[in-house]
Amino acid sequence: MNIRFYNARILSMEEGTGIEEGEVWVKGPYIVYRGPGRPSDTVWDREIDVKGNVLMPGFKNAHTHSAMTFLRSYADDMPLLDWLNKQVFPMEAKLTSEDMYHLSKLAVMEYLTSGITANFDMYMDPVSVAEASADCGFRTVLCGAMNNFSQSLEKEEQWYKELNDHHELVSFCFGAHAEYTTSRELLEGLSELAHKYKAPVYLHNSETKEEVEQCIGRYNRTPTALLAELGIYDHGGGGYHCVYMTGEDMDIFREKGLYAVTNPGSNTKLASGIAPVKQMIERGIPVAIGTDGPASNNCLDMFREMFLVTGLAKLKESDAAAVDADEVLKMAVVNGAHAMGLHDCDVLSEGKYADLTVLDLHQPNMQPLNNITKNIVYSGSKQNVVLTMVNGRILYENGVFHIGEEPEDVYARANEIIERIR
Amino acid sequence: MNIRFYNARILSMEEGTGIEEGEVWVKGPYIVYRGPGRPSDTVWDREIDVKGNVLMPGFKNAHTHSAMTFLRSYADDMPLLDWLNKQVFPMEAKLTSEDMYHLSKLAVMEYLTSGITANFDMYMDPVSVAEASADCGFRTVLCGAMNNFSQSLEKEEQWYKELNDHHELVSFCFGAHAEYTTSRELLEGLSELAHKYKAPVYLHNSETKEEVEQCIGRYNRTPTALLAELGIYDHGGGGYHCVYMTGEDMDIFREKGLYAVTNPGSNTKLASGIAPVKQMIERGIPVAIGTDGPASNNCLDMFREMFLVTGLAKLKESDAAAVDADEVLKMAVVNGAHAMGLHDCDVLSEGKYADLTVLDLHQPNMQPLNNITKNIVYSGSKQNVVLTMVNGRILYENGVFHIGEEPEDVYARANEIIERIR
Repeated sequence: MNIRFYNARILSMEEGTGIEEGEVWVKGPYIVYRGPGRPSDTVWDREIDVKGNVLMPGFKNAHTHSAMTFLRSYADDMPLLDWLNKQVFPMEAKLTSEDMYHLSKLAVMEYLTSGITANFDMYMDPVSVAEASADCGFRTVLCGAMNNFSQSLEKEEQWYKELNDHHELVSFCFGAHAEYTTSRELLEGLSELAHKYKAPVYLHNSETKEEVEQCIGRYNRTPTALLAELGIYDHGGGGYHCVYMTGEDMDIFREKGLYAVTNPGSNTKLASGIAPVKQMIERGIPVAIGTDGPASNNCLDMFREMFLVTGLAKLKESDAAAVDADEVLKMAVVNGAHAMGLHDCDVLSEGKYADLTVLDLHQPNMQPLNNITKNIVYSGSKQNVVLTMVNGRILYENGVFHIGEEPEDVYARANEIIERIR
Repeated sequence: MNIRFYNARILSMEEGTGIEEGEVWVKGPYIVYRGPGRPSDTVWDREIDVKGNVLMPGFKNAHTHSAMTFLRSYADDMPLLDWLNKQVFPMEAKLTSEDMYHLSKLAVMEYLTSGITANFDMYMDPVSVAEASADCGFRTVLCGAMNNFSQSLEKEEQWYKELNDHHELVSFCFGAHAEYTTSRELLEGLSELAHKYKAPVYLHNSETKEEVEQCIGRYNRTPTALLAELGIYDHGGGGYHCVYMTGEDMDIFREKGLYAVTNPGSNTKLASGIAPVKQMIERGIPVAIGTDGPASNNCLDMFREMFLVTGLAKLKESDAAAVDADEVLKMAVVNGAHAMGLHDCDVLSEGKYADLTVLDLHQPNMQPLNNITKNIVYSGSKQNVVLTMVNGRILYENGVFHIGEEPEDVYARANEIIERIR
C-alpha cells in the first residue's frame, strides 16, 4: 500500500527536531518521505488528512506478558505472595499454547488502542505469542523466560535461531525470568549463550526489596552485580523493573550500556516501590517504559505509564521539575525501541519502518495547544488515538481493528478460557 | 424527554447491590424506573440499546478549578513556588469573567468525556463558572474561594443567597481558599456565616508539608485544628487535598462528619505527597475524589484519579491489598456526591436525578469480564465512555457533544485567550 499522510503535525522524535507541519509518505512497510507537501507521481492507495493532529512514531511497550490478559481483574487487591502463589501460578499451569495465542491477541488489540506499535514480551510459550502478533500484523520482540521450572538453555538457543528467522515482525532475545527463580547453573549457561552469539540478555531485575535482599543472602551481591559477574550482561541487555538499584548497580548499567525498563503501573499496584528513574537518567542509563502484564497493571496503556513515570519521579524526589515531558516521551518511543533492538522503527524518518500513530488534538484534553509534548504526556489518553500503523499497515483506525479477526470473537474466546480454567 | 435504556448491566451504586441486568427509564430530569424489562405505556423519545454495557451514576469531580484550562501544559516541570508565583498568578490576573466562562466550558467538555456529571468548583469568579455549566446543561457546585486578595465575606453571603436560587443545576457552598492565604479575621467571619446559615464550609487543607508547618508556626496548631477551633466546621464541610493529616486532624474529621477530598494526580505532579487515604477510610472519614485544576494535573479524568487513589495507597502502605476497587468506586461516585451536598444524584434509583454514564465493555481493556468493578477502576479509560447524561439530558454520546456550542469554537476561544494574555 502507498499511503500519504498530509496536513500533519509531525513529531518525528529525531534528535533536535520539534513539531513540523507537513507530510509523511509510506510505501510498503517503509517511510519514504517526511517534509513539506510537494508534488509526487505516486499513485496513492489512500491519502489521509491528518487534520492538524499529531503524527508520531508508535510507543514501544518494553516489558509485558501479553497472554496474561485472562487474569485481568481476577485477583487484585491481594498481598503479592498470595496473588502469585494462590492465583497466578495455579491458573497459568492450566493454559494451553492455543490459549496463549488467543489471549495475546486481546493484548495486541489493547496496545493498538494506546498507539503502541511493538511489545517486548516474556511468557511461557513465546511461539504462541509470536504467532498471535504475526497474524495481527503487530511487531513483537520475544524474550526468553527460562527459570528452574520452565524453558531451558536448549529451548532458548533453538528459539534464538528459529524465531529470529521466522517472520519479519518477530524477533527473539535471550532472557531468564529472574535471578530468584533461576539457578546459578542456568544463569551461567545463559552467559555462555550470550557470549556465543554476542547477544544481549534481559531479566526481571530488582523488582522488589525482598528479591534484592534474598540475592544478597545467597550470593553476597545484588542481582545486578551477580549477573554482571557471571558475564550475562557482557553483550548488553538490561533489566525489567529496576526498582531497588544501588549506586554500584547503576554504575554497572551505565558502563555496560544496559537498559532499565521501568514499569510504574505494576510497581504501584503491587506496592513494589518507586524506581529511581531520575537518578538513572542523570547517570546516563537509557530508561524505557513497559506496562508489565495485565494481571498486575491491569491495563496496557502507555499514556497511564508516561504520567506515572514522571509523576512518581516527582513524588520520589520531592521535586515537581523531575523528569520532564520530553524525557518521558523519548523513553516511551526511542529508548523503548532501542532496548528491544529495534533500530529501524525508533523515529519517523525516511528509510525507517512505518510504525506510527495519530493522536487527536481536537479533543478537550488536548486543548489549548500551549505545548503539545506536555499535552501528550500529562493529559493524553487512549481516547486521543485515532490511528495505529505497524510496518506500513493500518491495524487500528477510528475505533475499528484490522487484525484479521472480529473483536467480539477475541473477547468471547478470552471469556471461554477463563471460564474453563477458573 | 422520555428515554429508555435497555439491555444494560446496571451498577446502581446502591448499598448492597452489585451488577443487575435490566432497564433504566428516564422522564425529564428523573429516573423513574430501574429493574427488569416490563411493559410500559410511555411514548419514548428514544430507546437506547446499552448492548450489555455498564450503566452507572456519573462520577463526581469533588475538587477542581475548571477555568484553569488555559494553563494546561503552560508551565509544567517547574518547582511549585516558581510555578505559582511566576506563571499561575500573573496569568490569572489578566483573565476577564468572559474568559473564565469560555475556559470553564472547555473543562465541562472534558468532564463529559470521562463520565463525570458534576464538579465541585473553586475559582475567582464563580458566577462565570456557574453560567458556563448551566449553559452546557452540566451540574456544578461552586465553592467560595475567599482569601486576603480576592472575594469577601459579603460576596460569599451574596452568592450563597443568589447562586443557590439561580438555576436547577447550580448551587453554592461557603469556602475559603486556604488557611495560609486567609487572615484569622476572615476565617472568623466565615465561621459566623457557617453558623448563621447552618452551612458546611470547604477549603484547601493540609495540601503541603510547608503549609501545615507554617500554620503551626502561626497558631501553634494544624490547619484542621485551627479551623475546628474557629467553629468553621461546626456544620460540616471538609478539606481539599488532606495530604498531611495528623491523628488528631483525622479525629476531628470523623467527629464532625467532614469529607476529605483527595487529589492524587495533582499531589503527584506537584510532588506534594501521598494522602493517607487508607487511614482516613479506616477511621470512618468519607473520602471523595477530585482532579484538581488542569494547570496542576493536567487532565480532568476520573479514571486516572481512581487508579492513582488505590495505587498510591498501596505504595504508601506497602500493601497491595490497600483500598480496593469497590471502595474507590464508592469514593468517585457516592462520596463525591455527598461531599458536594448532592443527595439526589448519588445512585441510580427511582426518584433520583438522571446523572449517569454508559461505559463500553466491548473494548480490549475491559475484557475478559472477570470483575467489572475492578475493570473500571484498574483498566478503565475515557475511551470506554460512550454516553454521559446530566439531569436527564444526553450531553455527550459517541464522541459528539450536545452542549449548545461547537467544540472547535470552544477550542479556538481557549487558544485566543492564552495568545492574548501570554
